[in-house]
Parts: sequence; C-alpha cells; structure tokens
Amino acid sequence: MNQGRGMRKKVGMPPGSLLYTGEPTMETIVLRGIDYTPTEFYEIEQATVDDLLKLKETPAMSWIQVIGLHDVQVVEQIGTCFGIHPLVMEDILETHHRPKLEDYGDYLYIILRAFPPGDEDYDNTEQISLIIGKNYVLTFQEHGEGLFNALRARLREGKGRLRSQGADYLAYAMLDTVVDNYFNVMESMGEGIESLEEQLVLTANRDTLQEIHRLKHAILLLRKAVWPLRDMLGVLSRGESELVRESTLIYIRDVYDHTIQVIDTLETYRDILSGMLDIYLSSLSNHMNQIMKVLTVISTLFIPLTFIVGVYGMNFKYMPELEKEWAYPALWGVMISLALGMLAIFRRRKWL
Amino acid sequence: MNQGRGMRKKVGMPPGSLLYTGEPTMETIVLRGIDYTPTEFYEIEQATVDDLLKLKETPAMSWIQVIGLHDVQVVEQIGTCFGIHPLVMEDILETHHRPKLEDYGDYLYIILRAFPPGDEDYDNTEQISLIIGKNYVLTFQEHGEGLFNALRARLREGKGRLRSQGADYLAYAMLDTVVDNYFNVMESMGEGIESLEEQLVLTANRDTLQEIHRLKHAILLLRKAVWPLRDMLGVLSRGESELVRESTLIYIRDVYDHTIQVIDTLETYRDILSGMLDIYLSSLSNHMNQIMKVLTVISTLFIPLTFIVGVYGMNFKYMPELEKEWAYPALWGVMISLALGMLAIFRRRKWL
Amino acid sequence: MNQGRGMRKKVGMPPGSLLYTGEPTMETIVLRGIDYTPTEFYEIEQATVDDLLKLKETPAMSWIQVIGLHDVQVVEQIGTCFGIHPLVMEDILETHHRPKLEDYGDYLYIILRAFPPGDEDYDNTEQISLIIGKNYVLTFQEHGEGLFNALRARLREGKGRLRSQGADYLAYAMLDTVVDNYFNVMESMGEGIESLEEQLVLTANRDTLQEIHRLKHAILLLRKAVWPLRDMLGVLSRGESELVRESTLIYIRDVYDHTIQVIDTLETYRDILSGMLDIYLSSLSNHMNQIMKVLTVISTLFIPLTFIVGVYGMNFKYMPELEKEWAYPALWGVMISLALGMLAIFRRRKWL
Amino acid sequence: MNQGRGMRKKVGMPPGSLLYTGEPTMETIVLRGIDYTPTEFYEIEQATVDDLLKLKETPAMSWIQVIGLHDVQVVEQIGTCFGIHPLVMEDILETHHRPKLEDYGDYLYIILRAFPPGDEDYDNTEQISLIIGKNYVLTFQEHGEGLFNALRARLREGKGRLRSQGADYLAYAMLDTVVDNYFNVMESMGEGIESLEEQLVLTANRDTLQEIHRLKHAILLLRKAVWPLRDMLGVLSRGESELVRESTLIYIRDVYDHTIQVIDTLETYRDILSGMLDIYLSSLSNHMNQIMKVLTVISTLFIPLTFIVGVYGMNFKYMPELEKEWAYPALWGVMISLALGMLAIFRRRKWL
Amino acid sequence: MNQGRGMRKKVGMPPGSLLYTGEPTMETIVLRGIDYTPTEFYEIEQATVDDLLKLKETPAMSWIQVIGLHDVQVVEQIGTCFGIHPLVMEDILETHHRPKLEDYGDYLYIILRAFPPGDEDYDNTEQISLIIGKNYVLTFQEHGEGLFNALRARLREGKGRLRSQGADYLAYAMLDTVVDNYFNVMESMGEGIESLEEQLVLTANRDTLQEIHRLKHAILLLRKAVWPLRDMLGVLSRGESELVRESTLIYIRDVYDHTIQVIDTLETYRDILSGMLDIYLSSLSNHMNQIMKVLTVISTLFIPLTFIVGVYGMNFKYMPELEKEWAYPALWGVMISLALGMLAIFRRRKWL
Repeated sequence: MNQGRGMRKKVGMPPGSLLYTGEPTMETIVLRGIDYTPTEFYEIEQATVDDLLKLKETPAMSWIQVIGLHDVQVVEQIGTCFGIHPLVMEDILETHHRPKLEDYGDYLYIILRAFPPGDEDYDNTEQISLIIGKNYVLTFQEHGEGLFNALRARLREGKGRLRSQGADYLAYAMLDTVVDNYFNVMESMGEGIESLEEQLVLTANRDTLQEIHRLKHAILLLRKAVWPLRDMLGVLSRGESELVRESTLIYIRDVYDHTIQVIDTLETYRDILSGMLDIYLSSLSNHMNQIMKVLTVISTLFIPLTFIVGVYGMNFKYMPELEKEWAYPALWGVMISLALGMLAIFRRRKWL
Repeated sequence: MNQGRGMRKKVGMPPGSLLYTGEPTMETIVLRGIDYTPTEFYEIEQATVDDLLKLKETPAMSWIQVIGLHDVQVVEQIGTCFGIHPLVMEDILETHHRPKLEDYGDYLYIILRAFPPGDEDYDNTEQISLIIGKNYVLTFQEHGEGLFNALRARLREGKGRLRSQGADYLAYAMLDTVVDNYFNVMESMGEGIESLEEQLVLTANRDTLQEIHRLKHAILLLRKAVWPLRDMLGVLSRGESELVRESTLIYIRDVYDHTIQVIDTLETYRDILSGMLDIYLSSLSNHMNQIMKVLTVISTLFIPLTFIVGVYGMNFKYMPELEKEWAYPALWGVMISLALGMLAIFRRRKWL
Repeated sequence: MNQGRGMRKKVGMPPGSLLYTGEPTMETIVLRGIDYTPTEFYEIEQATVDDLLKLKETPAMSWIQVIGLHDVQVVEQIGTCFGIHPLVMEDILETHHRPKLEDYGDYLYIILRAFPPGDEDYDNTEQISLIIGKNYVLTFQEHGEGLFNALRARLREGKGRLRSQGADYLAYAMLDTVVDNYFNVMESMGEGIESLEEQLVLTANRDTLQEIHRLKHAILLLRKAVWPLRDMLGVLSRGESELVRESTLIYIRDVYDHTIQVIDTLETYRDILSGMLDIYLSSLSNHMNQIMKVLTVISTLFIPLTFIVGVYGMNFKYMPELEKEWAYPALWGVMISLALGMLAIFRRRKWL
Repeated sequence: MNQGRGMRKKVGMPPGSLLYTGEPTMETIVLRGIDYTPTEFYEIEQATVDDLLKLKETPAMSWIQVIGLHDVQVVEQIGTCFGIHPLVMEDILETHHRPKLEDYGDYLYIILRAFPPGDEDYDNTEQISLIIGKNYVLTFQEHGEGLFNALRARLREGKGRLRSQGADYLAYAMLDTVVDNYFNVMESMGEGIESLEEQLVLTANRDTLQEIHRLKHAILLLRKAVWPLRDMLGVLSRGESELVRESTLIYIRDVYDHTIQVIDTLETYRDILSGMLDIYLSSLSNHMNQIMKVLTVISTLFIPLTFIVGVYGMNFKYMPELEKEWAYPALWGVMISLALGMLAIFRRRKWL
Repeated sequence: MNQGRGMRKKVGMPPGSLLYTGEPTMETIVLRGIDYTPTEFYEIEQATVDDLLKLKETPAMSWIQVIGLHDVQVVEQIGTCFGIHPLVMEDILETHHRPKLEDYGDYLYIILRAFPPGDEDYDNTEQISLIIGKNYVLTFQEHGEGLFNALRARLREGKGRLRSQGADYLAYAMLDTVVDNYFNVMESMGEGIESLEEQLVLTANRDTLQEIHRLKHAILLLRKAVWPLRDMLGVLSRGESELVRESTLIYIRDVYDHTIQVIDTLETYRDILSGMLDIYLSSLSNHMNQIMKVLTVISTLFIPLTFIVGVYGMNFKYMPELEKEWAYPALWGVMISLALGMLAIFRRRKWL
C-alpha cells in the first residue's frame, strides 16, 4: 500500500509541462497499431510513431494502443498529431486520476481504472486513458498488457458486430472489458470471503483480521473505480455526444446496468466483512472467557484443598486430629467430596 | 453464501451471445401455457414451444410461464417469436440482476427477485422476469415452481376481477404475489427474531451471533430486492406507460404502499438486530465479570489463610506459639474470623 | 415485541376482499355518532349502523367514531354508504400501515398512528383512520377508546371555535390530539431517561441495558409514526386540497411545527441513549478492572510470602537458619517489610 | 438534563389559549422601553405596559424588551396592541421551539435560542423571540438578562451606525449578539476539550467519560440552535422580505458566514471528542493489560518455586536429598537460576 | 491543538471595526510589490504602503503581497486605496474563516487555507486572502512566507505563460500552488500511514493510538480546507465572473480535478486509519489473551502439583505411604506424568 508515494511529483511546475508520475514497470514501450474495416484487418505489433501516423491517414477504423507511459515524447508526438489538448496529455501521464469523461468536441477523453491482470492482491489499480475520435480510438495504459487481448482477438477473427461498427462501438467493447475485469476481481474477492468464513469458524487469528482489512481495501479501490464510471456511463447513455451513435446507446446502457450490479455486490461484500469483523472480535472475547474458565476451575478446585493440607502440615504440639488413626483417610474423604461438590457446581453453571 | 460463484461467467464474450449464468436445479424445463377470456380458461401443462406460439395467435389473454432457464434455445425461440430484444433475452438468462423496469414500447420488461418458496434460510433470491405485452404476459423463473400456483388457481376458478382484466392487471397480481412472498419471509424473520430474544436471555453463545448475522444477511437480500421494486412501482404508478391502464394504477399504488411497509419493517428489524448484537457483546463481558468474581473471591479467601498455615509449618527450633496448648484452636479462630470478614466485604461490594 | 405476528394475514387473497388483520382486544364494537351545529349538539352513545346513516342525511357536521374493527361488516356498511373506495376500506382494516394522506376528491383519507392510552411500555402503536368529507368526519380505531375523549368533551361544552368550524377544523383538532399523545409519550420517555441516568451512576446491571433498548425501541416506533406525519402535514399545509379551508391552514402549520419539535427531541433522546450505552459498556470494563486489582493485590502480597514460609517448612537436615533463636522473629520482620513495601508500590500506582 | 419535564403542559387544551410552559426563574418581569433617533435616546427602566404603548405612538425607533414570561397578561396586552397573531403569542410563551422565521407581512417573527449568560454547564438554551416591525423591535426572553446589555450600551452611547439605521439593523445586531454568545460557549468548550486532553494522558477515570458526554450534549444543544439559524439567515439574506433593506443584507450575510463557522468548529469538536472516547476506552484495556502483567509475572515466578519447596517439605521416610549437607544451598541455587531465567523471558517479551 | 483559543476575540464589538484575531508570529510585516508585463519585471522587496500605491497607477499587472496581519493600519490603507469593502477587510483580519468566494463586481474575494510550510504536525492551517481585480492581485497571509516563492521565481524568470496572462491566470497559479501544498501534506501523511502500518505489526502501544488520532485530525483539517475549495472552483469554472477569461477556465477546471483527487485520497486515508484503529484495539485483546494463557498454563500445571506435595507434608501419625521406600520416586513419577498430560492438553488447545 504505497498510497503516499508518487502521488504527484510535479508540485511547483507550471501547467502544460508533461511528466510521467507513475513508476515504470516495463523496459520498453509497446506501440501497437490496428486498422480494420468490416472485411479487412491490419496489425503492426511493434510500431514506430511514424507507422501509427500513417494509420491515421487511412479511412479505416484505427486503434492505437500505447502500453507504458515512461517515454513522454512518444505520448507527446501521438497527441500532437491527433490534435489532443495539452492538458489531456498531462492527464494521460499523471496516472492517479479518478475515472472521468470529457467531451472535447472532436474527441471524447475517458479515464478508466482497471486492476492489472495477474495481480492477486488487488491493492492497486491502473489508469487507462481512451481517446475516441470519429474513426480512431487511442488507448494509453501503464503496464496492463493482456487486458485487451481478448478484444483484439475478436477483432482479428472478425466475428460478431465489432468490425462493422465504428469507434464508439469499439470504445463500448473496451468499457465492457474493464467492467468484466471488475467482475473477475469480485469473483476472486467472493472466494476470499468464503475462505475467510471457514477460517473464522476454525482458526481465527490475527491474519484473519488482516485478510479482512485487505479485502476491505480492495473493495474500497473497486468502489473508487466503479462509482465515477457509473456516473460517466449515465451521462454517455443520455446520448448527448455526437460521437456516440444512437444504435450504440443500448449497449452503453447495458454496461451501465452492469456497473450498478458491481456496486450492489460491493455493498453486500462490505456488509458481510463488517459482520465478520464483529464475529472475529467477539470470538476474541469468547476465547478469553474459555481461558478464564479453565483457570478459575483449576484454582477454585485446588486452592481450598491446598489450604486444608497446609493445616495438617503445621507443627503445633497439641493437634488432636493428627493422632487419630482414621484421620488421614477421613481427610481424603472430605477433600474428594469437596472437589466433587465444586465440580457439580461448575457443571450446573455450564463451565465444564 | 456463495456470493462469489457464478456471478457472471460470460466475461470476455461479445454481447448478444445468450448464456445461462445460474445453476440449473431442475432436470427439465416446465413450459406452461394459459389462455383465458372472462368466460373461458384453457391451460397446457407440459407445452412445447409450438403450443405456446399457437396461444399467441388467439385474441385471448395469454400467460406463458417458463420455469427453468438452462435450455437457452427454448428461451431464444419464445423471445424471437414475441419480438423480444436480444439484450432482454440476455438479461433473462443472466440471473443476477437487480429489479428493474424497462419500457420497450410494445412491451414492458420487469425483473423481480423473490425468495424461493420452501427455502427456510433466505440466503438467496431468484430472478423472475416478466414481459408484459398488449394481450400476453411471459414469465421466466429459474426454479420458483409454486410461487404463482395460487394465482393460477384464482385464474382457473375465475373468481374476482382477474379474468375480466387485461395483461396489466395480471402483471399487477404477479407483483402483488411477489410482495406477499416478502411478507411471508418477514413473518418468518420476525419469528426468528423473537426466538433470538429468548436465546439472548437464557443461553447466549456463539450460535446466537451467527443467527444474528444470518438474519442480517437475509434482511440485506430483501432490502436489495425491495428498494428497486419500490422505485419501479413509483414509476409505474405515475401511469406513463400506455400498457398500464388508468384503472389498474390504483392497484399498483396499493402494491407500492406495501413495499414501503416492507421497507419500514426491515428498518425496524435491522435496528432490533443491532440492539441484540450490543446485548450479546455486553453479555460476554458480563459473563467474564462473573467468572473473575468467582476466581477472585476464592483466591482472596484462601491465599492469606494458606500463608498462615504455611507459617506454622516451618521448622524453626524456637517458635514459642507451637508449644502452647491453646494455639491450634486459637489459630482456627483467627482464620475463621478472617474468612468471615472477607465474606462480609464481598457481600458489601455485591460480589456474592 | 411481536413484530413478526399478524403483519398481514391476507397473503394470496385477491385485492378488495375485506379482512381485519389486527388482533381484536374488545368484545363489542363501539359505534358513536355525533351531530353538531354552532348552537346544537346531539350524541348517540351506542349507535346502530342505521342511526349513523341518518346522521349523514342532516346538514349538520357529523362525526362518526368506530372503535373496534373486528366486525368487518359494520365497516363495510358505513364505507359503502359514504361512498368510500374499497381499497380505502381494505387499508382501514389492515392495521399495519404507516401514516399517509390520500386525496380522493370527495374526501381525504388520513392514516395516523398513536400510542394506546394507558400502555406504559410504548411497544406498540395503534392505527387511526380519518375520513374527512365536506360535512362529516369518520374515525376508525382498534382499541384506542379514550384518545378523543377530551375532544368530545370540548365539542359537547361548545367552548372555543370547535363547533363553529367545519370538518377540516375538527380533523385538525384530532391531529393535534394525536401529536399531544406523542408529547405525553415523550414526557414519560424523558422520565425513563432520567431514572436511567441515576441507575447508571449507582447500580448499572443487565436490566439497565434492556431498559436502554426498550427506550430505543419506543423512540423508533415514535419516529416511524411522526416522520410520515410531518411530511403529510407539510403537504396539507400547502393548501392544495379544497376540503381544507384557508383559515385552517395556519393551525395545520402549527401542528406541523409541533411534529418538528417532536422529531428534534427524539434525536436528542437517541443521542443521549447512545451516550448511555457507551457509559454502561465502559462501566463493565471499569468493574472488571476493579476486580482484577483486588485479585492482583492479594496474590502479589501473599504468593511471595507463602513461598518464603514454604522454604522454612523443608525438612533438609542441614539448614543453619532453623537453629538460630532470633531467626523466627527476624523472618517475621522480613515478611512484614516485604508486605509493606508492596503496599507502598500499590498505593503509588493508585491501586489502593 | 431535565429533557422530560415541562416540555408542553398544554396537552388537551384548545389552540389560542395562552399558557407559559417554561419554569419561571425570576420574581418580577422586567419591562424595558427604548426609543431612539439618530440624535436622541430615551429609556424607561421599569416600564408599565402603558408606557410601552406610548412609545409605539412616536415615530422614533422603539425597542421593547420583555424579560420573564410568566405573566401571560403582559405578553397578551403588548401582543394585542401591536397586532400580533394569537398563534405567535402562543409560540412566544411555549419556550421549547426550535429557531424559525415567519413572515407575517407587517412584521417578521424570529425565534432564536441562546445559552443563558453565566450558566457554565451549557445544558440548556433559552428561547428568545424577536418581532421586527417597520419601526419597532419587540424581544421576549425568559431569564436572559444581560445578553443584550452590551447592545443597549452601544445604543445609549450612539457610536457606530446603530442609531442611524432602522429596525432591521437593530435585529441584525441582536442576531450577531446571539452568534457571539455561541462563540463564547464554543471558546469555553474548547478549553474544556483541552483540559480533557490533559486528563486523558494523566488520570483518565470515570469522570473523564462523563465530561466527554457533557461536552457532547452541549455540542448537540448548540447544533440544534445553530443549524436552523443558518437556514433562517440564508432565507433572510436572499432579501425577500420588504422589512429588511438592501443595505442590511450584507450584514446578514456576514452573520450567516459566522454561523457556518460555528457549525464547522462544532463538527471538529465532535470529531475530537469521538477520538477521545476511543482513547479512553482503549486506555481501560491498556490498564487491564498492565494489571494482568503484574499478576502473571508474580504468579509465574513464585508458583513453581512454591511447588519445589513444597516437595522438600514432604515427610517421606526415604528422601535421599534431605540427608546431603550441600542440598539446601544447592536448592537455593536452582531456585534463583529459575527465577532469573523467568525474569529474562519476561524482559524479552517486554513485560517488565 | 488550541481550537478553543483566539477563535474570535471581537465578541460584542460593532461590525466594521477592524481587529486582527490571529496570533502574530512575526515581528515586522513583509510588504512586497511586483509589477510585470510580458517583457518587464519590477519587484520592491521591503515596500512601504506608498510604494504599493504607486504600483497601482501603472497599467502593468501588479501583485501586492502582504505577509503578517498584526498591523491593522497597513491592511486598512491598502484596502481603502483599492476600494475594498470594509467587511472584506474585516474577513481578511479574522483569520478563522473557511474557504469562500465572493464576487464584488470590481474584484473577486477568495479565502483559502494552506498548511504553513515547514510545520510537520499539520495541526493548523493558515488563512490566505486573495483579491483579484482587473489588473492586480492582492494576497494577505499571516506567516506563510515561502508558500509563493516558487511562483515568484517563475514570474521573475518569465518562463511559461505566466507573464503574458492577466490577473485571473496569476490567481489560478496561486490556487494551483495551494493545492500542490495539499499534495505535499498528503504525501507526508501517506508516509506517516506507512510507518504506522509497520508499528502496528511490531510494537503497537499507546503512542500508536495517538499517532492515528493525530493523522485523523490532520485529515479533518485538510478536508475542511479542500471541500469548500472544490465547491468554489466549481462555481469559478462555470465562468460566471467577468474577471475570469474564457481561456483560463480550462486551467481552473484542472485545479478542480486536482481537488477531487485530494478528496478521494483523503477518504481512502480515513478508511485505512479506521481499519488501523480496529487492528490496534483487537491487538490489545490479543495481547491480553496471550498474558492470560501464560498465567493459566503455569497455574494449571503447578497448582495441582503443589496440592499433592502438600498432602505428603502433613504430620498425621498414620500415613502408610510415607513409610514405603518406593513412595518418593513413585510420587515423582505421578507428578511428572500429570504435568506432561497437562502440557499435551494445552498443546492440543493450541495454547503453547
């Protein structure tokens, strides 16, 4: 949880100066260019910036995918070429924004947050920037290679309506992919919650508590990703942007429904986790009660007996009981009766 | 509580591809077709899809009931024949939606959630999809056989206004049945709460806590079913849809009132359960206090006495007390006085 | 607290079928008819339904009071005669509604909830239905005989403006009576809180906790009665209904202010009770600390001493100390110093 | 905290019947009349009702101050003479209203709540009623002599703009005085919080808890006084009333800002107090831990040693150790090593 | 935390009388005047009031910076000369306002709150007043020397767009600087949280709790600074003021986004701190459980053994066991078996 680090290193600099504020996790940037029409598909795996600019000239739908943002110049060149506002480029590079939608007339700028595939801790989300133009979509990610692989495969195979639709539909497919990403994370959270439930019954310890808080933190992160997304999709689905065609709206509304479903399930999870915290804390008290009962039973049984044997260990000259032959077995009788009586009392109080 | 499972298995697939996401619990699908006019009633128990399509042709009111959704093709055929939008069919098969109302002009699409009859744990709700056309109502359920039995009986007997009214009134009767289902569940919850209250007084243990959380979870589920239903009924009762006639609105408003009553009672239950949690937790502390008192009383009584008898168990050569004849009974006197004094102190502190 | 019982026994029946859902507490129904003009007053104590219908014919203001709802036919006859909608009659008999206001054009239908006079537990509210026509007011109650007695006395005596005003002013006087009922209940709650405060200081035990929760429950009930009433009065005071004359509005607004005052005081009470819960729970911990201190002081004093006397109780042949004549008194000196030293330490730690 | 008492003794009486519902704390009523123009100032200290009525006739600004409300007739005479609505008079005498503003066309009726000067417990607020006419201001208070003294002095000295402005500006000055009263109370609360902070570190005990709740209660009271005041000032500052001139609005807005400042600080205080409660409760647990550590260290040290010396106190005939000359010192060696070892373990666990 | 002190010392004084309500921390006031055009830059380090007034006459952009507010006359002279409303001057000197924006037509008045640079405790914020005219910006601070140093340097160097833009852009740069100040504080908080997380795992003690509350308090302070700032920027970015040009709005919106980011992160921090509190409190219980286990294990092992050796320390004449030669070693065998058996039980219960 490095919330404090790298939040924004640009403090004190004038606006418009581009600077990447995340932490680079890849060595090289992946630049990928895809051009497609309903019938054709063309993909450049390791593109140069020039390759990408050529794609822009063609009338075909273009999808330019930038993975890795630490080379500021690449982002700047692409941005300048597509006529992107400097503040948008700044936002692309400052990777700690909450999801938002901005309409710049010629293009829409969308920020999403997704959990990096393969990260099982869910303690971080990655910023994904989409720029949706008339016949192009630009995507900028930090290290989320793999997130859009299935989508690219569907494009390549040309099944479904994906290829015959425009940039808005491709953007919808991306939004859908990100929400699917949330569903995956929630499924994994659900499993975590189930295994926590078992732990709680069997062997609740301090790790249980930390697991509860880890899950709470993940839920918090997901909430922060999905709430603004829901609002944004609500705005999009009202169809105010000219870049989103009427026919795509119903799909946007479908994703919107899914985000509500995510939010609903998150609330349930949060509630269940709170209940678990209660159970965990009260199990601590229960445990203490168990320990105290054992201590009390043992002490209460033996402390009086020890006193009695202490009495007959005294060295007084005149202790008449000591002389009697039947005294020793009689004392044993008394002590055993006393012990049995105490045990009976404990049993009545349900301590045993 | 398998929240994590089967939430949505379609991740990564294109929209429009139909796939059932619940867990089939029945072997075969029940297809039932009912045709009625104010004077006539016709019912096919084990209908084929073709039978159902014939019903559609008649001018009489038709109710087609599909129970069991794992045969995707049946749903698809019926949907296609009645001109249902593919996304609606998808929603019917993805059985984890929250209640909603969508107006498609020719028909209304309503999702409801009900507790399966016979399930006494209330840890799951079932999705019920209604499609309300001009003279037909389609219902899709997973396994809720039995929910609409009483309604079907009323139709068959032809009592009341049910047969003489249209599709909107039949849909109202279904909504009313579902809200009645909630009342049944709440009545059972109310009994659970009452028996919890008795448990709390007599023998609060860890099961009490889990029962409290089971009830809290059920309340949560019911809340999630009834809140959106209330909103939906609020929209319906404003009479904006042409498929709902003026004369039916007053009945819709009646169901709306009932949902508010459900919500109100749920809030009360939640409050009572929170109070119970407080009582349970403080009873743990009380219990601990009781145990500690016993331990302290016993220890405080006997530890000093044991010290005293220890003193006269020492083997010093010159211990003048040991020689006196009256010393032993005198010591007993001292020890008994000490013990009685302590008991008096405990009694004054209300520990005994 | 029988929240679970009798909530609504009509499950599965068609709408419009009248059924009383409360629990009858009186043997016979009280039917009372009052006719009055500014100068005259006429009252039938044990009226028949026919008597009441005659009252309706006169031009004078009529107040028909029905106490006891288990004879469904009486309610039905009166309702039919006054042209009351069947769903309103149903609501009158289903006595678990929250307060509401419905405008049926010819008459207003108002549901109120009041605490039955004489019930000191405040764990239940009674439903009171008012039907306000042009020159009549109908009231239906379950068992609340006595609530409107003072009002009837004022009518009989003819003091104040009551007799010279119409049905709306009579209804206002009833609303005012119900809010006065709330003030009475709150006054009694206030006394309960004061006596709780004393208990908390002196002898907090488990009953204290249950008393706190009993009061919390009563506050909850009152909240549920008064919040919707406030909204309803807000609507009424806007003067949209033709049945409420301009001159009465200012009185309605006065009752509205009083409901706000009730709500305000309730919030304060709730806050005070939460504070009490904190104090109670921390007093449990404090109590435990006291007990533990006693145990620790006693143990810490005597366990080391018992060890020492144990040492000189050993039977070794060569223990030089045992032979010295001054050894025994010297040991006492050592032990007393040790004990005094420990006591000094405890006193410094404020344990004594 | 006598919340339950005297809330409203009028239950069951018709509206319009004037009755004082507070508890009289002064013997006689103070009636004070002030007349002023920009150049002149005239004050009657112990006025009769007739004196006051004469003041009304003059064209000069009049301020009539009534302190003490138990003589209902005085209030009634003044009210009737100035043409005040009977319900307003009722509200003046029922001294448990929340702050509100009512516009009666000819005059504004404002209710404020202030803490009585000199009361250091802040467990009660006093109702202050203002009636603001074209050229007069009437103020009614229960016992708050002293609150407006500084204001009267400013009027008398004629400094500032007070005398040259109208009734609205005088009312503003009163509102400002009341908000200043809140700032005084908050300053005193702030000191209470600071001294609590010191107590928490040094000697937290049960009084600390009660002091926390006393402050919480005072904050609650102040919140209830200031929240409606803020709303009321928001309405006033929109300038909808003809009685408040344009030039005064900016001053009203200034008071409005101050109320927001009060609310802000209150929220901070509440937060700090909640934090203190946490610290207090966890200090109880800490304290218990300390006690338990002492008990455990002592017991764990001496119980095994006591067992050992007990072994050699046994009277078996054949115990070879007892005969050896070196056995006694050797045993001491063993016991001291054991004790030191245990102490080392405790030190490693940070228990010492 | 001196919340209670110096909140507002003006109680009882008429409005318009200027009085500084903070606590002066510098000896002399810093008056700094800056004049700039796109090509020129002119700065007076230790200006007199007269110098500043001369700057006002020039057509160039002027920035007048006042640091230290205890010399009321300086503020008054500058204010009067620039035509500032007396209530604005009052607000500048009363340094406990929440952030706000007021549009006086000729100029905008903005209050901000920033954490003084160099203060590592973050238990106080300083009020910064901006007055933005057509071609001048006035800034008033208490002691925040250093906050705007970087900005002044950028102006002096003439890089970026700062010099070529007007007063609105300079004000934007100041707002941006303040939000950067918040980011710095949050970064430091983030580090504090990280080190708390380590402490919690290793050595949670009472300081941990106080550190948690210190951070909570700082978050509260920051929330109170940033929430109203966000609202204010929302209003500004709607472009309703003529003093803010169209081209500056996009930058305002950028700062607005940053405030939302601050708020978001604050919520996360608050949540994490709440989780830490839970962990800390439950670690207290855990710790107690550990101690109790040790005590119980030791007591339960040795108390029965001590009883046994006590038995054979008794002085009865006829104790047959004492005579047997094998009795002593046999007893050792019994005692060791008993101890091992107990240890096995403890191990099975996971107490060891």
